[in-house]
Amino acid sequence: MATTDKQLRVAMIGSGNFACCIVKNVGENTKRFPEMFHPTVNMWVFEENIEGRNLSDIINEEHENVKYLPGVALPDNVLAVSDLRKCCENADVLIFCMPHQFIERTCRTIRDVVDPTALVVSLIKGFGDAPDNDDDNAFQLISQRISTHLGVGDANCAVMMGANLANEIAQGQFCESTVGCSSNSPSTRLRLKRLLETDMFRIRLCDDPKTVEMCGALKNVVAVGAGFVDGLGEGIHVKSALIKRGLIEMMAFVRLFRPEAEDKTFLESCGVADLVTTCFGGRNRLVGEEFARRFANSTPTTLHALEAEMLNGQKLQGPMTANEVIHILKSKKQTEKFPIFKRVDDICKGKHNPQAILEVIS
Amino acid sequence: MATTDKQLRVAMIGSGNFACCIVKNVGENTKRFPEMFHPTVNMWVFEENIEGRNLSDIINEEHENVKYLPGVALPDNVLAVSDLRKCCENADVLIFCMPHQFIERTCRTIRDVVDPTALVVSLIKGFGDAPDNDDDNAFQLISQRISTHLGVGDANCAVMMGANLANEIAQGQFCESTVGCSSNSPSTRLRLKRLLETDMFRIRLCDDPKTVEMCGALKNVVAVGAGFVDGLGEGIHVKSALIKRGLIEMMAFVRLFRPEAEDKTFLESCGVADLVTTCFGGRNRLVGEEFARRFANSTPTTLHALEAEMLNGQKLQGPMTANEVIHILKSKKQTEKFPIFKRVDDICKGKHNPQAILEVIS
Repeated sequence: MATTDKQLRVAMIGSGNFACCIVKNVGENTKRFPEMFHPTVNMWVFEENIEGRNLSDIINEEHENVKYLPGVALPDNVLAVSDLRKCCENADVLIFCMPHQFIERTCRTIRDVVDPTALVVSLIKGFGDAPDNDDDNAFQLISQRISTHLGVGDANCAVMMGANLANEIAQGQFCESTVGCSSNSPSTRLRLKRLLETDMFRIRLCDDPKTVEMCGALKNVVAVGAGFVDGLGEGIHVKSALIKRGLIEMMAFVRLFRPEAEDKTFLESCGVADLVTTCFGGRNRLVGEEFARRFANSTPTTLHALEAEMLNGQKLQGPMTANEVIHILKSKKQTEKFPIFKRVDDICKGKHNPQAILEVIS
Repeated sequence: MATTDKQLRVAMIGSGNFACCIVKNVGENTKRFPEMFHPTVNMWVFEENIEGRNLSDIINEEHENVKYLPGVALPDNVLAVSDLRKCCENADVLIFCMPHQFIERTCRTIRDVVDPTALVVSLIKGFGDAPDNDDDNAFQLISQRISTHLGVGDANCAVMMGANLANEIAQGQFCESTVGCSSNSPSTRLRLKRLLETDMFRIRLCDDPKTVEMCGALKNVVAVGAGFVDGLGEGIHVKSALIKRGLIEMMAFVRLFRPEAEDKTFLESCGVADLVTTCFGGRNRLVGEEFARRFANSTPTTLHALEAEMLNGQKLQGPMTANEVIHILKSKKQTEKFPIFKRVDDICKGKHNPQAILEVIS
């Protein structure tokens, strides 16, 4: 970011359920800290027609995303913009919160309007396409892809992951989050905190963004498994055992790529707290539970069908991430060391029925 | 233990809810492995009069502890014995499962009938009386007190802790447990496994029994706090944040005494899995929840009164352990580094109302 005495312009790239929860906080914060931020927050909206009106118009007129976060007022300084380039022009801070399959295309579209000194914050949980060989350099996290595609430096690319369920945040419930940022610039770190933190949404900064990001993605795989366990009618012991083993696999996976990852990072909100939260709340657990229940009731279905049925257009991240994780592990010939991840992926793909999750717990 | 070719005699010292769950497994195992164990398992019963009959007679005639584990059949080779010395005579394996305030008296009573080569397994969760000064040597875990009082070596004194709720075990639900044992004797380790493990009750051995034992006690303090959070009607985010901070305090507490404790021990069943289990199930959470709810409904009561009302003669370990933990921390002048433990203790003692748990989470 060029100067410190100008008001930084913030853009949110995405307007789904979670993006709207966070932009609510961000919009309140840009008004609260005018010495640091320009109050207007542009929010890119992938245009949809809602009963004859543009979603972006509805948001700008009614200050509510009636499709993805109905019933929650957005600050009136959040401006829905359906033109992606226009949304990002002159932005000093870009917050990415969108399905990761659109990352490359999005970055290509905005690259030449983005200042290479801009600060990027990724809220995206997943890995994206896995490498096709075992070349470690081929493996890039989503934040790394964003920074590479946009030409911004790694130190200017932060992530935010943690125990936060969208609807609970929007209701103003207390929750915590971990912002991973390798920059040791005090001004960068202060900006992140000012922009993202509220009284009820607490931030802790961590200087290992890669571990933070991987935790954010991996916990969704475990949460799908926790849903299976719930749907099978198993009790708390089985679920706790799954959570424990899932945490161990998360740590082992991270250390395949970052042997230096410290245990304490897994004790941040993005680690054990997010894992517990996601295994007891959230949509991955919920859909996993219903999937297992339908099997048990002899009315089996697919996760894809349940996603459509239960999530109102939102995407289920866990099964997608499981697929990516197994692809990555295969390329490193490590799959057999990750029985929980593998079994969740197999169940998601119909290679096993949900009951088979129990075999890798006991 | 003297020889390997004789059948080892096993005694369970205690006959409460958890003792009966475990003795059920133990009784099945002594029958299953006659080459290792004498089938009869003596179980010491603190005699009570139940509608005109001795509890020990009821157990021996009906093979059920109608007071503490009603509805669950005990194996007929479990023999209730109300004379403590008789129960322990000639025992090669002594399993302790009783309220810890009776440990000293119990050990004194049986000391001269116990072989110093006997194997001891403590299932007791707590710390007992704390030292009155900051001399580290004054601090003894319950297992250490048992071994000291009985004159058996440390290596022959194991502990079992882990994610196991008594009633769920008795129903045959899957659960896991950690046996901490510093002995590296393969025969000792095999005996522990054979004696305690079943298909649904899985054991993992860990060579750091002190850490295992401390985890088993400390998690009950966090669970009381989790109950308060539930009783206040807070959501999963707050509870996960409490669990995370509780785990961090558990690790820090253990390392005051065992700086060498490895992170991996906290990833065993006795660590994170037991913590999650106990914060979502179990009596400490349950009573904590009711305590906070009564406060919120302006019908406050004491934990002592709730214990009597809700637990059918069983004891609530969490508040007792909180008191012990704070006593220990005070003696080491470390209390301020453990805000969760301190606040739980204060709330249990009526120095704060349950709502105050939230102040140490956010």
